[in-house]
Amino acid sequence: MRSIVIFYSCYLSCLCLGLACVACVCVWFSQWRGGFAWDGSPLQFNWHPVLMVTGLVVVYGIGAVLYRIPLTWGQNKLPWKLLHAALMLVALVLSIVGLCAVFDNHNHSNIPNLYSMHSWIGIAATALFATQWVFGVAGFLLPCSPISLRKLLKPVHVWFGGTILLLSIAACISGINEKLFFTLKGNATGTQPYSKLPPEAVLGNSLGVLIVAFGLVVLKILSNPEWQRPDSRPEDFAYAPLIHEDNE
Amino acid sequence: MRSIVIFYSCYLSCLCLGLACVACVCVWFSQWRGGFAWDGSPLQFNWHPVLMVTGLVVVYGIGAVLYRIPLTWGQNKLPWKLLHAALMLVALVLSIVGLCAVFDNHNHSNIPNLYSMHSWIGIAATALFATQWVFGVAGFLLPCSPISLRKLLKPVHVWFGGTILLLSIAACISGINEKLFFTLKGNATGTQPYSKLPPEAVLGNSLGVLIVAFGLVVLKILSNPEWQRPDSRPEDFAYAPLIHEDNE
Repeated sequence: MRSIVIFYSCYLSCLCLGLACVACVCVWFSQWRGGFAWDGSPLQFNWHPVLMVTGLVVVYGIGAVLYRIPLTWGQNKLPWKLLHAALMLVALVLSIVGLCAVFDNHNHSNIPNLYSMHSWIGIAATALFATQWVFGVAGFLLPCSPISLRKLLKPVHVWFGGTILLLSIAACISGINEKLFFTLKGNATGTQPYSKLPPEAVLGNSLGVLIVAFGLVVLKILSNPEWQRPDSRPEDFAYAPLIHEDNE
Repeated sequence: MRSIVIFYSCYLSCLCLGLACVACVCVWFSQWRGGFAWDGSPLQFNWHPVLMVTGLVVVYGIGAVLYRIPLTWGQNKLPWKLLHAALMLVALVLSIVGLCAVFDNHNHSNIPNLYSMHSWIGIAATALFATQWVFGVAGFLLPCSPISLRKLLKPVHVWFGGTILLLSIAACISGINEKLFFTLKGNATGTQPYSKLPPEAVLGNSLGVLIVAFGLVVLKILSNPEWQRPDSRPEDFAYAPLIHEDNE
């Protein structure tokens, strides 16, 4: 009982932190950076942080902990598998559109792509995520996938799940740092530099703190073996192919 | 047997990646950034990345996985506890000296401290690490610490261990990104900007990739329950106070 109460406290924190991350990044880029457009301008760039934080961090994290909700354990696993795959697909599409936003903006402004540490880590996270989604659907949802393959794939899938989240957190932190140094330079019009911590800088740094807190809560939920769905625990591994799952 | 072979492969990768991280950061700041001094100049700053990567990432990571080495399992735990505490103390001292280097350089050059996302994450990692070390020694090494406290402290200690590593990786990635943007601006003397990926940028980005790979291998080792020292596993938790450990 105590474990379930702690789980739901963590889960509620995860939802609240996720909501706070999305609110924070939306307020930052709509109120301080002029809002959004899809015309190659800096307003198109603004979609990049909003979509990456929403997709690659928040929807991804909420999708990752879905099986851990004890309320779902007594139920047929298949609808939850489909919801997990669907949430991850939404996260992946948001991330890819977020990448398109920045590539398009860079190409319009003749800014080179994929040279910075931030971009290397971010592109690695998204590429791993796309690979993980394809292997996840092929391995765990296709009826023809054998149980032996699922057993082999499961720990790899879980491990890469955590790795992708770690990479996306590192990408977000370096991205926020880079964006604030680029935009808050201080000038004659009275704009304060990053080093003076004007309100926009505090908002950006707070977004970073919220993202780290969200990621830690998600990794905490994923790492607790007590919170694993009973039929997914390694000791009584009993993955049935999709075709049998209605009988679970 | 298979599990032990995989462990030693991971452990060897961890040592090699750690060595590569230290070599890479030393070469970067000695060959491309003019070397080291302790006089408030930019050469003093150069100690900061070298000491943070060596202390807060490499020595910390190697110290964290010490109990997982199967060769040590049949032996008295006390010397390994002392070595774990000693390695972590070395890591902590290196990190604190690394912070002193950057504070001192900033103060000499009138650069404000602790405003960037990188600095917030980095200072949080070091402060958590210092707290973790003090609580670790008080909880697990002092003979007067009761078993009930150790049982309570153990999962918290392990959890914060992983959290500190995650924070230090995020701090390193944002730090490398920031340093390369600051120093590789491109100018009339023929220096290429970061966006052209000159050799220094490739070296810096490669350091980031090595740090992420090192962190992932350490977290992989820490997260595998099969690689936990048998008398430290939750199911047969039997922490004895220091005074009894000679009999273990």
